[in-house]
Amino acid sequence: MKLTPRDPDWQDRVRTSFVAQKFMAHLGASLTHLAPGEVDIELSLRPELTQQHGFFHAGSTSSIADSAAGYAALSLYPAGFGVLTSEFKVNLLNPARQPRLVARGRVIKPGRMLTICQSDVHGIDGEQQVHVATGLFTMVALEGMKD
Amino acid sequence: MKLTPRDPDWQDRVRTSFVAQKFMAHLGASLTHLAPGEVDIELSLRPELTQQHGFFHAGSTSSIADSAAGYAALSLYPAGFGVLTSEFKVNLLNPARQPRLVARGRVIKPGRMLTICQSDVHGIDGEQQVHVATGLFTMVALEGMKD
Amino acid sequence: MKLTPRDPDWQDRVRTSFVAQKFMAHLGASLTHLAPGEVDIELSLRPELTQQHGFFHAGSTSSIADSAAGYAALSLYPAGFGVLTSEFKVNLLNPARQPRLVARGRVIKPGRMLTICQSDVHGIDGEQQVHVATGLFTMVALEGMKD
Amino acid sequence: MKLTPRDPDWQDRVRTSFVAQKFMAHLGASLTHLAPGEVDIELSLRPELTQQHGFFHAGSTSSIADSAAGYAALSLYPAGFGVLTSEFKVNLLNPARQPRLVARGRVIKPGRMLTICQSDVHGIDGEQQVHVATGLFTMVALEGMKD
Repeated sequence: MKLTPRDPDWQDRVRTSFVAQKFMAHLGASLTHLAPGEVDIELSLRPELTQQHGFFHAGSTSSIADSAAGYAALSLYPAGFGVLTSEFKVNLLNPARQPRLVARGRVIKPGRMLTICQSDVHGIDGEQQVHVATGLFTMVALEGMKD
Repeated sequence: MKLTPRDPDWQDRVRTSFVAQKFMAHLGASLTHLAPGEVDIELSLRPELTQQHGFFHAGSTSSIADSAAGYAALSLYPAGFGVLTSEFKVNLLNPARQPRLVARGRVIKPGRMLTICQSDVHGIDGEQQVHVATGLFTMVALEGMKD
Repeated sequence: MKLTPRDPDWQDRVRTSFVAQKFMAHLGASLTHLAPGEVDIELSLRPELTQQHGFFHAGSTSSIADSAAGYAALSLYPAGFGVLTSEFKVNLLNPARQPRLVARGRVIKPGRMLTICQSDVHGIDGEQQVHVATGLFTMVALEGMKD
Repeated sequence: MKLTPRDPDWQDRVRTSFVAQKFMAHLGASLTHLAPGEVDIELSLRPELTQQHGFFHAGSTSSIADSAAGYAALSLYPAGFGVLTSEFKVNLLNPARQPRLVARGRVIKPGRMLTICQSDVHGIDGEQQVHVATGLFTMVALEGMKD
């Protein structure tokens, strides 16, 4: 599916909004890939992101999956639109105990008002990638809500 | 539905595990209610929990909803069992911009292996409560995985 | 939550649309309760609704849960709006092998464009009710799409 | 991902169980592809499968998505195991008003007890394929429950 941004400054707009998500900074997340309808967000394993067994908490994993999906959606909207998560569902497929997580958010159905995204999270350990989570996200675009 | 813990030390076990979730400490979350099959977790609004509009990030909201559901499930298992999130789905109903969030995790179907929970999150501002999120969670219990 | 229909003919409109859902007739479903933001749909166990173990197929159970949620949403919209399911999630809590199922769709968050509903399905066997499924539904309202 | 059936008679077992799902016959569904961890189920548009606008009802679409996912999972289990749907989530991406639907169920994470599947449904109209739905499914395997 060929996706076309409607704002020439879409890259700046996405990057600026990502920096404004203080929660992403608090997790230590970084935006590592940006293309129309595609955003990757990464996270390194640190104790403060873990649950009681030392794995990434489902909340850490889901949070970067959600932001990756949201920014994949935002990349396609005109200036002057903001994007909020309406709902999402995540399946946690394998324990997330690798040194690094990459969440890959991809638009699967762009829309005027609703954009549906899939986000897959892989745990990376050297050459190995483990599929730790997959999720579906509904993003709602609101005009006049600067993002 | 009357739910009965199978471990006399269930309260200690849940509280100890909650303290061991470093991610909950990183968010600043606290466990404020504990009963068989019921756990509440609270979070105060701080800039580092927000998205770009200054609301609680969907990831913050979902993280406490998830932990509340997981500990509601754990409260019913015998000693020697650990609980992991298998999957969850959250609908974000209203912007979460109140000073405080309370996630109320409740077991709706206990099971030997799978426990299904509902978690509702309300934003609290003085006397007012706004329903900011509702979710369904599948928790899987693993024997021999100390929680 | 007090919900108020915006169309004086909301009851007729919902009933007429339900009759127009030929799939509901094919399942043998009937609409048994109608109030603002509330619709119940029932189904009696017949072999053609079952899966390989003789239980109601997850598809039968979900189908009435979905229609109940959709009509609960529709009951609140002005004339001239149609409602489509955008997404839903269902947890199947217990085997559905009772003589009769009741799906109770309830609006939990009405909206101009999106309405969020919960639908709970109980299996009824004489005096006994078993909670067989619970689900969350996002309904999208489209103006000019006659329902 | 290379998936290997553990029962030499897996094909017979899946086909026999599909025939035993009377609900699939009631919908007019047919099993059109079978490989380890992969099942396709098809449905032709008939009035009795539609909602009030003449599209496939979300329940019809989800029902074949669910059976395709369930049989994809079952294809990998040893004889003597049955598979039930524990939960699923579906996003309806485009109106399903094509002459034919194909649901493609694929195992994305096999497991001893839980198998996670994705099911994508396309509407087929001559050469054109429209992505009408995507969903994630958790299937639970029960030993001693003949499928």
